[in-house]
Amino acid sequence: MGARAVVVGALGYSGAELLRLLTRHPGMDVVGAGARELAGRAVGEALPHLREANDDLILVPQEEAAAIPADVCFSCLPPGVLDAFRTEVGAEIVIDLSDDHRDEPGWAYGLTELNREAVQRSSRVANPGCYPTAALLVLVPFARHRLIDGPAVIDAISGASGAGRSPEQRLMAAEMGGNVGAYGTTQHRHIPEMERGLAGFGTLDVKVSFTPHLVPIPRGLLVTARAPLITHATDASVLQVLDDAYRDEPFVDVVEGWPQTKHVHGSNRALVSARVDSSCGVLVCSAAIDNLGKGAAGQAVQNANLILGVDERAGLDVTGVWP
Amino acid sequence: MGARAVVVGALGYSGAELLRLLTRHPGMDVVGAGARELAGRAVGEALPHLREANDDLILVPQEEAAAIPADVCFSCLPPGVLDAFRTEVGAEIVIDLSDDHRDEPGWAYGLTELNREAVQRSSRVANPGCYPTAALLVLVPFARHRLIDGPAVIDAISGASGAGRSPEQRLMAAEMGGNVGAYGTTQHRHIPEMERGLAGFGTLDVKVSFTPHLVPIPRGLLVTARAPLITHATDASVLQVLDDAYRDEPFVDVVEGWPQTKHVHGSNRALVSARVDSSCGVLVCSAAIDNLGKGAAGQAVQNANLILGVDERAGLDVTGVWP
Amino acid sequence: MGARAVVVGALGYSGAELLRLLTRHPGMDVVGAGARELAGRAVGEALPHLREANDDLILVPQEEAAAIPADVCFSCLPPGVLDAFRTEVGAEIVIDLSDDHRDEPGWAYGLTELNREAVQRSSRVANPGCYPTAALLVLVPFARHRLIDGPAVIDAISGASGAGRSPEQRLMAAEMGGNVGAYGTTQHRHIPEMERGLAGFGTLDVKVSFTPHLVPIPRGLLVTARAPLITHATDASVLQVLDDAYRDEPFVDVVEGWPQTKHVHGSNRALVSARVDSSCGVLVCSAAIDNLGKGAAGQAVQNANLILGVDERAGLDVTGVWP
Amino acid sequence: MGARAVVVGALGYSGAELLRLLTRHPGMDVVGAGARELAGRAVGEALPHLREANDDLILVPQEEAAAIPADVCFSCLPPGVLDAFRTEVGAEIVIDLSDDHRDEPGWAYGLTELNREAVQRSSRVANPGCYPTAALLVLVPFARHRLIDGPAVIDAISGASGAGRSPEQRLMAAEMGGNVGAYGTTQHRHIPEMERGLAGFGTLDVKVSFTPHLVPIPRGLLVTARAPLITHATDASVLQVLDDAYRDEPFVDVVEGWPQTKHVHGSNRALVSARVDSSCGVLVCSAAIDNLGKGAAGQAVQNANLILGVDERAGLDVTGVWP
Repeated sequence: MGARAVVVGALGYSGAELLRLLTRHPGMDVVGAGARELAGRAVGEALPHLREANDDLILVPQEEAAAIPADVCFSCLPPGVLDAFRTEVGAEIVIDLSDDHRDEPGWAYGLTELNREAVQRSSRVANPGCYPTAALLVLVPFARHRLIDGPAVIDAISGASGAGRSPEQRLMAAEMGGNVGAYGTTQHRHIPEMERGLAGFGTLDVKVSFTPHLVPIPRGLLVTARAPLITHATDASVLQVLDDAYRDEPFVDVVEGWPQTKHVHGSNRALVSARVDSSCGVLVCSAAIDNLGKGAAGQAVQNANLILGVDERAGLDVTGVWP
Repeated sequence: MGARAVVVGALGYSGAELLRLLTRHPGMDVVGAGARELAGRAVGEALPHLREANDDLILVPQEEAAAIPADVCFSCLPPGVLDAFRTEVGAEIVIDLSDDHRDEPGWAYGLTELNREAVQRSSRVANPGCYPTAALLVLVPFARHRLIDGPAVIDAISGASGAGRSPEQRLMAAEMGGNVGAYGTTQHRHIPEMERGLAGFGTLDVKVSFTPHLVPIPRGLLVTARAPLITHATDASVLQVLDDAYRDEPFVDVVEGWPQTKHVHGSNRALVSARVDSSCGVLVCSAAIDNLGKGAAGQAVQNANLILGVDERAGLDVTGVWP
Repeated sequence: MGARAVVVGALGYSGAELLRLLTRHPGMDVVGAGARELAGRAVGEALPHLREANDDLILVPQEEAAAIPADVCFSCLPPGVLDAFRTEVGAEIVIDLSDDHRDEPGWAYGLTELNREAVQRSSRVANPGCYPTAALLVLVPFARHRLIDGPAVIDAISGASGAGRSPEQRLMAAEMGGNVGAYGTTQHRHIPEMERGLAGFGTLDVKVSFTPHLVPIPRGLLVTARAPLITHATDASVLQVLDDAYRDEPFVDVVEGWPQTKHVHGSNRALVSARVDSSCGVLVCSAAIDNLGKGAAGQAVQNANLILGVDERAGLDVTGVWP
Repeated sequence: MGARAVVVGALGYSGAELLRLLTRHPGMDVVGAGARELAGRAVGEALPHLREANDDLILVPQEEAAAIPADVCFSCLPPGVLDAFRTEVGAEIVIDLSDDHRDEPGWAYGLTELNREAVQRSSRVANPGCYPTAALLVLVPFARHRLIDGPAVIDAISGASGAGRSPEQRLMAAEMGGNVGAYGTTQHRHIPEMERGLAGFGTLDVKVSFTPHLVPIPRGLLVTARAPLITHATDASVLQVLDDAYRDEPFVDVVEGWPQTKHVHGSNRALVSARVDSSCGVLVCSAAIDNLGKGAAGQAVQNANLILGVDERAGLDVTGVWP
């Protein structure tokens, strides 16, 4: 008998990915799944790819699911919803994928590789945003080494699932297919999260200029970041910084070529790389993750594994589904 | 220590998928990987998504790989190549993914669900083509029940990886993106394979009219088949025929809605369904597989599991990576 | 001063395509555009690709647009809506893209190449469905020549815009991307339209078994049809039948290879081809159109040109945007 | 009788797009088309979407095509090839799409909006690269106004056709589909072209840090650029700078939302926009073009129109094919 897991917000893309990972997880049993609609229906009916969970797992209303006694509750609810429930969460451990608690005492910020000890001894984890996960993984090692200064100019390219499952015309296949564009304002809610992370994990107090783009791929997220170099560096030395930081990490790989999102499709892996643009004195670095993997559900499972004391890799793939 | 496995033709799409499945397989160890090019390079360098195999597995020339002593050799070579090698295959069990031996005595035709006993007692398996796998899974139960006659009109829609990894202009993303069309002649090499299967497994001696199409998805294969009904049937009764045929099969699911390829993305699962077009007296049935999963590498592993006497599901997913 | 044109339902995909074609049309001026939402906004604001119409064309409510005095009113409203308006249509000529009037006296069925004379002398045109347009263009010549019998087995593959612009989860880029599947029942509303067309234009009274599929391309539609051959035929003779039928048609091309949708992207062109599957005694034929071009807005403009007595090709492209 | 045009390198993507535009051009007649392969075949056979050019235009070897007497020769040959021909170019005007002559006396740099007078009086035009076209259009107005300093951090996202038509595994639909990644080094050949343009047209001597990415769309190019602001600016004031610069330009539109590539698909239009990231003191600006339109063939035709003294818009669309 594995740990009992509950997923609320189970029919969004992150929730669905959590169910996929948890039904394959050797040490977890899904004992509850909450949804705003389709309560009473089997999960495998609402999400036909989830055959393994097909018959026995019935969707219940969100608040009811949250109250189920369990070891871990993964919440994929929109911001503010979980906290507004009148009943208490029934699980001992809460992994919240919203950005409600990412800057709050009592909650560990769940960017596992950068904050493992805090996560491990916590029962409340605020899972990071997908963009901050990729950006901080590749930038913090350089911040720690005092190689870079600000402002950091960060571009991100996200697949369609990153925009959520609420139907909108701009997200329809007819309109996204064949299209590329930036979106959002210069005040994206992930900017302070990135600045906090650079300050907190990298002790670098800088500003971030961030521009996210949407492209017609179902999942995958790429960050390309630039920051002024404040000390001499070479392509080899900046790769070495990343190598030193992540040598023992099972889910972060330093690659020589530019990271490609498809190499991590469906996995919890992050690919990072960096080069020196010597003509400008700029560090160019890039990270690829699956926005639903390391960027959401995968990292949530990784954090739960850590707290539960099982192998951090349990139930998670490092190999992307390619091509 | 698991069974020793060798993959020849490791850098094609089927070969790469085999390596992905085998590196995750709890009962197999990849001891050799053959390639026409890049011999001497690590597999993880040639196929960057295969991080788990990264350091220790070095590509060798195809013929050299085929000769490596092993328990199972998976051959993803083009037709005729394996047989032309001067050295003998070093493995006890050979799973050949080409169509060299699909109609040959001494070889078991590896459509597992329809031919399990023959596969189980064989050491030479001719893995089926992707189109025949999907078409026969959904049509044979109706043939066996004498519900249908010929000719069977079969349409297939395949993702880009089904056309192989040899670069051609028509397969480039710029040209396939946004395009749909039929291809090939009315003499596709999979037609006799389908007709043999209907006769052999379904005792139905009919002709097949087959038209394959290519669409811009990386992987996934859909078959839609029509055949004249020769007895009274209803939507419920034809679904029942499929249910009866596949109730105990771990990798075949009967669904009420039309099968969608993305529900099986990256898995070894097949989705099948059927309806009666009563105005024409025609059975309409459809099957979705991943062309590299149940249509190639997945089924090859399933067959190897069967022969080796391990759980048929070992190393294989039933849950597709969605969305 | 060109003919005055009004488009109602201007913000759907067919309406938007009509506006694109009409703003480029040398003999038409758009004098009104109706929309359910965004009344009061400029067309170029609601549809940013339509720069040419940017400043001066303001959206009005649907019923108000329909009442505008004009030469031609193109209606892209859903079934039943136009007829329910209390005010009369203000234009002399009505081209209705819904299926409200496709089988109704007083309305000409607007499959131009098969019904040119009726369209020319009519002021009420029921523009055909996208699937019947492609299917009838390629099948009617064989029906007329008594080469084929029924049932006709017709597969169709449609791009995402064919499913309309109302947001649904299944139409989102995250879910359609990488997916292929059939949809709908065996009672698609286009089946009687195809059967009527085969009987009316081809004097062939047969049943149609029809299965539509959705694939992740923004626009494009492919039909692959099979019918029993009832007389001797060869690849050359069936191509000749199509050649004879369409030699003088500016928008229908007979091609030797299989038609590809991208060759007609953005144009009003139809590609048709055919072969004999001699082992089954079956005719295999295929047609590619742009579902928003010849399958909707393009053919609507073609019909309007015909009635207005201008060059049938005015404002229409025969060259697809490729790649 | 229009001006006589020749296209060499006619079977690449830029060459094919030139033929599409020229066959629709009211004032041009294509009198020659050169190709490395398929000489003797009709253009409409080699490029099936080009029906209008179908019968009468026969491909000839590249050097033979270049020598044809004509008014304009458009060269889409790879760098160095045209100059290596032994025979002289037979046309009075040469528009070279390679980067052979972009920094050479005697040649006008063909970024029309920034260099119209020089192009107009020249008979040798070096058509700009696709990335510099987009980047300079959006950055030069700010450079001229002394609003920005360097280094400019420029990200670009290109569709698959931007990588050319030579088959490579990484460009195949199976591998590009669902993938996003940066490519190339920090020494892309377009960097000096951008720096020259900023200095020459904007009198701003700065360094550019440039990172191009490939995404799975057939065509379309987006540039997102950031540069330090050296004077006070607001969202409104930076939009005003662009408005002032392009108010009278038929092919450049200033938009308030972020430019989307699909709004210019198939057209010669450029969309530009800008905002102030006040927390960092950075200008964020973005431009969308069709890499084969304004980024190659469209701009080449625009330049030819200018030199020939016809309407600069002749044969060119400002409306993208959407969706």
